[in-house]
Amino acid sequence: MEEIPAANPGQALQEVEESAFGSYAQLLPDPSAEADCKGVPPLLARINSPSDLRKLPVEVLPEICRELRGFLIDSLAENPGHFASSMGAVDIIVALHYVFNTPDDRIVYDVGHQAYAHKLLTGRRDLFKTQRTLGGLSGFPNPMESPYDTFMAGHASNSISAALGMAIADKLTPGCEQRKTVAVIGDASISGGLAFEGLNNAANNPNDLLIILNDNEMSIDSNVGSLHKYLSELSTSLHYNRVRKRLYDFFRTKGYIGEGGKGRILRFNNSVKALISKQQNIFEGLNIRYFGPFDGNDVTKVVKVLQEIKDMKGPRILHLHTTKGKGFEKAEADPTTWHAPGKFCAATGRRLAAPSDDNRELWQEVFGKYLVRLAEDDPKIMGITAAMPSGTSMIRMLRAMPQRTFDVGISEGHAVTFAGGLAAAGKHPFVAIYSSFLQRAYDNIIHDVCIQNLPVTFCIDRAGLVGEDGVTHHGLFDLAYLRCIPNITVAAPMDAPTLRSLMLTASRHDGPMAIRYPRGKAPAENDPAPQPSVLHPGKGRKITDAVNPRVAILSIGEIGNEALKAVEILAKKDIEADLYDMIWLKPLDTDMLEEIASRYPLIVTVEDGASSGGFGSAVAEWLNSRHAAHPDRPDPRHLTVGIPDRWIAQGSVAQLRAIAGIDAESIAATITSNL
Amino acid sequence: MEEIPAANPGQALQEVEESAFGSYAQLLPDPSAEADCKGVPPLLARINSPSDLRKLPVEVLPEICRELRGFLIDSLAENPGHFASSMGAVDIIVALHYVFNTPDDRIVYDVGHQAYAHKLLTGRRDLFKTQRTLGGLSGFPNPMESPYDTFMAGHASNSISAALGMAIADKLTPGCEQRKTVAVIGDASISGGLAFEGLNNAANNPNDLLIILNDNEMSIDSNVGSLHKYLSELSTSLHYNRVRKRLYDFFRTKGYIGEGGKGRILRFNNSVKALISKQQNIFEGLNIRYFGPFDGNDVTKVVKVLQEIKDMKGPRILHLHTTKGKGFEKAEADPTTWHAPGKFCAATGRRLAAPSDDNRELWQEVFGKYLVRLAEDDPKIMGITAAMPSGTSMIRMLRAMPQRTFDVGISEGHAVTFAGGLAAAGKHPFVAIYSSFLQRAYDNIIHDVCIQNLPVTFCIDRAGLVGEDGVTHHGLFDLAYLRCIPNITVAAPMDAPTLRSLMLTASRHDGPMAIRYPRGKAPAENDPAPQPSVLHPGKGRKITDAVNPRVAILSIGEIGNEALKAVEILAKKDIEADLYDMIWLKPLDTDMLEEIASRYPLIVTVEDGASSGGFGSAVAEWLNSRHAAHPDRPDPRHLTVGIPDRWIAQGSVAQLRAIAGIDAESIAATITSNL
Repeated sequence: MEEIPAANPGQALQEVEESAFGSYAQLLPDPSAEADCKGVPPLLARINSPSDLRKLPVEVLPEICRELRGFLIDSLAENPGHFASSMGAVDIIVALHYVFNTPDDRIVYDVGHQAYAHKLLTGRRDLFKTQRTLGGLSGFPNPMESPYDTFMAGHASNSISAALGMAIADKLTPGCEQRKTVAVIGDASISGGLAFEGLNNAANNPNDLLIILNDNEMSIDSNVGSLHKYLSELSTSLHYNRVRKRLYDFFRTKGYIGEGGKGRILRFNNSVKALISKQQNIFEGLNIRYFGPFDGNDVTKVVKVLQEIKDMKGPRILHLHTTKGKGFEKAEADPTTWHAPGKFCAATGRRLAAPSDDNRELWQEVFGKYLVRLAEDDPKIMGITAAMPSGTSMIRMLRAMPQRTFDVGISEGHAVTFAGGLAAAGKHPFVAIYSSFLQRAYDNIIHDVCIQNLPVTFCIDRAGLVGEDGVTHHGLFDLAYLRCIPNITVAAPMDAPTLRSLMLTASRHDGPMAIRYPRGKAPAENDPAPQPSVLHPGKGRKITDAVNPRVAILSIGEIGNEALKAVEILAKKDIEADLYDMIWLKPLDTDMLEEIASRYPLIVTVEDGASSGGFGSAVAEWLNSRHAAHPDRPDPRHLTVGIPDRWIAQGSVAQLRAIAGIDAESIAATITSNL
Repeated sequence: MEEIPAANPGQALQEVEESAFGSYAQLLPDPSAEADCKGVPPLLARINSPSDLRKLPVEVLPEICRELRGFLIDSLAENPGHFASSMGAVDIIVALHYVFNTPDDRIVYDVGHQAYAHKLLTGRRDLFKTQRTLGGLSGFPNPMESPYDTFMAGHASNSISAALGMAIADKLTPGCEQRKTVAVIGDASISGGLAFEGLNNAANNPNDLLIILNDNEMSIDSNVGSLHKYLSELSTSLHYNRVRKRLYDFFRTKGYIGEGGKGRILRFNNSVKALISKQQNIFEGLNIRYFGPFDGNDVTKVVKVLQEIKDMKGPRILHLHTTKGKGFEKAEADPTTWHAPGKFCAATGRRLAAPSDDNRELWQEVFGKYLVRLAEDDPKIMGITAAMPSGTSMIRMLRAMPQRTFDVGISEGHAVTFAGGLAAAGKHPFVAIYSSFLQRAYDNIIHDVCIQNLPVTFCIDRAGLVGEDGVTHHGLFDLAYLRCIPNITVAAPMDAPTLRSLMLTASRHDGPMAIRYPRGKAPAENDPAPQPSVLHPGKGRKITDAVNPRVAILSIGEIGNEALKAVEILAKKDIEADLYDMIWLKPLDTDMLEEIASRYPLIVTVEDGASSGGFGSAVAEWLNSRHAAHPDRPDPRHLTVGIPDRWIAQGSVAQLRAIAGIDAESIAATITSNL
């Protein structure tokens, strides 16, 4: 494998450690972080909707961009969020709202954390400080929040397909034929297969979709894939301007190029560029007119280009270069760290680390460190991440064993099928993907791994409620969607030693296995931590053992720690409860279940996943089959504590657990009211 | 929307009607179809493995291809299968096994129904007639079947990712560094997003993967998308040869092109081609060396080209043109009909229709016809299929309303997100996708439709056991993977009138709804059929009403007809059973469930889906919550009849239902043994 460009080992590791720290800063009060939000700057104060913006002369747009950046800096210094990409996209967003008649014209953002300026221009400036908090604004565009937010934008690469749908719908709706649709997609998102499917279909129907490629040469971590290299080479074609004129004349005189219109010249230009740079224009290949690249941080230029191409017919792509973190020196210099920097001082750019009150480790770090240990002992182990080396801590293995570790970019489907190929050739890949993003690879899990019973270990990160990222990022369905698949083994650790033991077990397991764990810190560990051991799939454990227990709590995974607190809360009310950590969803520990069912009058299953179809459902199935086989035996009552059948927005994990009824207090209350 | 090229309306409709007929021909005995399988031709008789093939002189390869085609014609005339694509790929497969040292070198087929010749060359000639039957060979490459079958190949577009995994694994495995890997992918499959993700990653790692693009300009139905147009234009570049030499000299003398090696000239050639044809070479753009196009039905030429490029370093794509149905005149002339023609006369090419013993209609036809009716009344309705207009009968709407109907090609993810975009702009799309292929769009269902509660109707075709296509094509997980998603409504009809009523209901429903139905014929209908009516979501119905019933059977969807037969079987044994057709998985009819639970001592749920997490699981959850709330009420015993937790291979639907224990006899036996 080639060296992955931005994965400067030293810097990358530092970045992990800092961002691991920083990303939790927002959860903790820190008096030193009190930035003075100096009120709204003068031009911005006059813009309560894009129509106000459109009344202003084009000359003031650069100043508006400066004001927006200042507002973002002041606001995000105190209320953390996605910083660098938002700063980079300011000029594009101002230009779009200036040129297009939003909300009648539609802007569809791809992975909406670039779209903060959009929120500020569309009547949400005063609410902006509530962003990513409970009851506040979503961190992503959200159609439920504003008519200017046209589509959900939490998962990458969907904008072209969705915008194409809107563009075609408008063409077919009387009175809407003149509405315009713009998709704004980043250079990392456009490498996803879904975006390619959208592009491949965009040229195939009559539509006037405009695709803005916001190329900041940087996804959350480094960008990967040949499309990325392609884009950068496309932009740096040497000799181009020097040679173009002479070639054009040569071909025209030879009769190969007619005196046609703009489009023909454009295509000729791209072909010449391709020839000179030995690169091909993929978009032109797909029959989508290509314009660019232009400086996407020059708002006046972007307005001019947009005005020129906005009324053109047919699908078009406009390639704009932007600088991540634009307007904030430290962020421009280190955009990876400043992707989501946590709190910082607006004046100095010093990042404000939240004081740590413990030495607990992030689940991701437990995973990342132990994966390297495992891989050192077992040459079959390979590591795969889909554009999240830092987020998953796969970067530790990427750094230690770059040849055996693969960042495949935003390509979850490929990540899993590629893992299947590695496994078919004798390797044992560990694929670390966030739970909600793994939904993109569902068929690949089934078809390319589980049918063939290949030894692939899925390390499902960000399982359960994820907090501030909100509705699109919660990992609530994995237990339900995996449990029905033959051949797969599914487990979830309650603590760090169990995670290590599960990883060790998976590495020796000759078939697919999924291990799910959440965002955040694992419970404190003994020092030294116990040696990992190979576990027996389908063997749970008893955590607490009361004298006269009236209820058994059965939990799976990290939420068991809430259940453990619930046991303590109940104890204070003189209600004795026993806690069992099931560890394994599949296979279930039916021996332990039989013991429990015959002993306790009340069973409460606890999970941080959808309450339909998951762990509680598996126990219900088992209890039903027990009753059918042994109707004479007394049946315990069974309550399911899980995420109810509705969408949960953003907030802190603690707040959301309380809302969903899966925190310690709620578990205890459920039990108390049902005894 | 542009006219879709191959969708010649008259011909297309005829094709549906014929293939609907034809595709069931294989299930029925037809004495007139007795072709004489004349034994094995002489050269083929000497080839028991590819190493035998490699001992022969290259001159005999065309004859071997002829023999293979003859064998395929004779065999498939009698034992139906995928004909046209298999015939087209014969020369490529012979050349690959001739040039590469299989099975040490690996061939990964994409959608393996092109790979019949591969089965014939790899020791499975004598078993070939068992293909697609119970206990016989799979219709697709299957690693469990042969060491020559390197990866599962039922779902399109996975070959590049899987082969890349193998190629990289070999590079990292001592002793395996020299193994070669070849992916063989069709022009339709390569348009899938997964294939693009594979391509995008292929150039990013050191590997020597060879990708063969088997371009027959035809997927099952017409091919769509700009990539398809691109490929055909790439192949027909005018002026190319005439101009190339002069241009090369021009550039060399001007110093823009050095006297470099082969690769540089190749890229130059492609750039010139791009310039002349005003088309760009996408593969070169992605940094994958491109060779072609060549005639893929000229086995000698293919061998020569493969020998030239087999030892080259780095990822390469070889573009070969083949003719679908090659070697059988009727199939060459009408490859869509001959994709899977059913039984036919090898001598005359006359297709042998199975005698129809009833006038029952295919579920697909019920859907396709009524969708047109609905769309005529409601301009908001749009139709979407992903490369299966005939298979789903979406071709009826495509023909009647081409502007409102979209075949997006092999792009299930795009199909669903595109539907989300249409719905966000006020339309109501009906998306018809096979159950197992819809797994590709799982995240799109969640993120791009259900979170936003958009009115998209999923018409889930080929739900349940599909029969001869086998393990990769059974639609067993949809009930489980959909039930956990908030906002979605899920239903399944037991008969054609209910399907129509569900479609009408969905068209008036302001949110996502899924309707699942199987392959095959719906139960016979009264004439005239009852008028469709808007149903109440979550309201089931009682089908039979016995005097002294001892058991209630609760079914969902078409499998209810097996349950109905089970009621009759039980009646003959003097066991009275009542049958309830739940219709709705979500919401469940809890009022009816309460009635049932309080009346019957035994409840048996029946579904043709995975028994973990699906319909039976939902009922178990409800029974558990009932017991928890009312421990005093007597609890019925509950048995779940569904697909057990293991993979089911191919066979007839009736055979597989018996094996899975969900046919009428099995249901009756389960009940008898549990009373």
